[in-house]
Amino acid sequence: MRTVEWVDNAVRMIDQRHIPWDLRYVDLHDVEQVAAAIRDMVVRGAPAIGATAAFGMALAAHTSGASTLPPLRADLQRAGDILKASRPTAVNLQWAVDGLLHLAEHTSSGSVDELRQRLLQAAQQIADDDIAINRRMGAHGAVLIQDGDTVLHHCNTGALATVDHGTALGVIRTAFEQGKRFSVLLDETRPRLQGARLSAWELEQLGVPYHIIADGAAGYFMRRGEVNLVLVGADRIAANGDFANKIGTYQVAVLARTHDIPFYTVAPTSTIDATIPDGSFIPIEERDPAEVLAPYGCAIAPAHYKVCNPAFDVTPAEYVSGIVTEYGIVHPPLTHSIARTLAAANSTP
Amino acid sequence: MRTVEWVDNAVRMIDQRHIPWDLRYVDLHDVEQVAAAIRDMVVRGAPAIGATAAFGMALAAHTSGASTLPPLRADLQRAGDILKASRPTAVNLQWAVDGLLHLAEHTSSGSVDELRQRLLQAAQQIADDDIAINRRMGAHGAVLIQDGDTVLHHCNTGALATVDHGTALGVIRTAFEQGKRFSVLLDETRPRLQGARLSAWELEQLGVPYHIIADGAAGYFMRRGEVNLVLVGADRIAANGDFANKIGTYQVAVLARTHDIPFYTVAPTSTIDATIPDGSFIPIEERDPAEVLAPYGCAIAPAHYKVCNPAFDVTPAEYVSGIVTEYGIVHPPLTHSIARTLAAANSTP
Repeated sequence: MRTVEWVDNAVRMIDQRHIPWDLRYVDLHDVEQVAAAIRDMVVRGAPAIGATAAFGMALAAHTSGASTLPPLRADLQRAGDILKASRPTAVNLQWAVDGLLHLAEHTSSGSVDELRQRLLQAAQQIADDDIAINRRMGAHGAVLIQDGDTVLHHCNTGALATVDHGTALGVIRTAFEQGKRFSVLLDETRPRLQGARLSAWELEQLGVPYHIIADGAAGYFMRRGEVNLVLVGADRIAANGDFANKIGTYQVAVLARTHDIPFYTVAPTSTIDATIPDGSFIPIEERDPAEVLAPYGCAIAPAHYKVCNPAFDVTPAEYVSGIVTEYGIVHPPLTHSIARTLAAANSTP
Repeated sequence: MRTVEWVDNAVRMIDQRHIPWDLRYVDLHDVEQVAAAIRDMVVRGAPAIGATAAFGMALAAHTSGASTLPPLRADLQRAGDILKASRPTAVNLQWAVDGLLHLAEHTSSGSVDELRQRLLQAAQQIADDDIAINRRMGAHGAVLIQDGDTVLHHCNTGALATVDHGTALGVIRTAFEQGKRFSVLLDETRPRLQGARLSAWELEQLGVPYHIIADGAAGYFMRRGEVNLVLVGADRIAANGDFANKIGTYQVAVLARTHDIPFYTVAPTSTIDATIPDGSFIPIEERDPAEVLAPYGCAIAPAHYKVCNPAFDVTPAEYVSGIVTEYGIVHPPLTHSIARTLAAANSTP
């Protein structure tokens, strides 16, 4: 099963807000529904929302009333704008939208239905590629994990954050499937608790030993010498290796450095935004205070209490031991090695 | 009003589990109820549980059926054991119990009722002293805060954590009462959310500007240059200045050091445990996984999910810019300055 897929001319996805309690699916029938699902975090995780946006573009083509290519392209442009506005930080969303817009703009022959079909095939390809890429990252990254290790993980980067398999949690999965025996500390990851809800749910199913900890406890376990490796995902990586990821990632990186623990991010090259020189250019989404004050509807403090709720932070490249990509592990100096990896990626057929 | 006080031969306290929703009081009529209230965190905060334990000893004397001093002393010894077993980390509890036991052991004349009365007076004195000490710490510490500052605070160290006024939050209160204008970032402080529930409730009433943040966001705001000072409390301070405090404190200290931000703990000398050379001797309480999985009864993940829930961590002295005590601010080298402060305290009538 996949986090997001195309079924009967609709975009079907797991409603992640109900995990770990229920595995529910929703079918979305127009691009506005898809954008709302991304905004409301029915689906989340940079690669998953990339694939979702691609299917959203295919859906926009299918629901368009256009009978010639120019108005279909105009509808797709509008759909792309709607999707890009849904969440600002992860670049995979833009990457997927721009990829499908590029295809539409460079398809000057054929019928409207043929373009619809080509767009859907392209979205399917992005989804299929995502799984293949994740398995390749899993194989590359699994060498970082040894028997007896304890790996600290922040947020959720598993099958649910992607189409399937996962990025950082995908590395953990691959290592476990290889027979390595180790355990995982899951930051619960406030405010939305992706660690306690999504990552724990996935590791329960895989049988990987884990413990959930409060986010404030990461330093405690590191200081006790009980963490050997930190693996996280990324929502956008700048040309110099600075990267945005779920709020709390930056301080885990600082703690890892203080305790001399390797700190790796695991992300496909589609997460790299080579157009920005460093992390200061990454927009940080500020989300609803209710996520902090009433997580999943459970009020922990009055709704009028004052809150700051940045959804992401930026970890400077200097804290990164390496980036696990589908082309291998990229090491510092990252500006150099990221450029080389992108060049290799662009020359790959 | 006080967090804990003696009313009609009972120990009356605010039930802090209902803050910020309701201000409810409970009356406790025997030492077992007092110990349970400490264990279940009806009352929490090192100075508050110190005063509570003192009243618990007075209550044990009042409820004892002894008619001569030796069996009364035996009952007090049992009561002290029960109270000391309620929570292991904060030393103020032991300090208060031992103080009243010492008084009982060294009172060889007078009636049983006279000893009962003297024990109650001693407990009252501890409670009154707590407030006076907190105001002195507030005055000493307020010099650390300047107009325009943003002060980061972890957990709750306000009136609710003490008999009244507070320790670290008491410094914030005193500075605000002096007319200084600044704002406070409150770590929500998972798992029990003392920042979001108790500290925010107190600052709402005082009118001090604040924002609640997820614990994982502290580093984000520090990196943006938006934090000028960190103030926290302490549950036990070793002779070398290592100190135990609410889980998450240690990593705030690491982050403060990384960002060159002053990091002070605010604690009365009763929090200093000169019998232990360093923080490795401080027992760290492991609490119920349900605190993480179902805070205040609200299930965020299934009850069988695996959790580690250490309630405290130890911050090494090297991260401490200074300790605000009732005798002034103690600076590094802390082994030296703590010893001098204790010597001064012991020579004070």
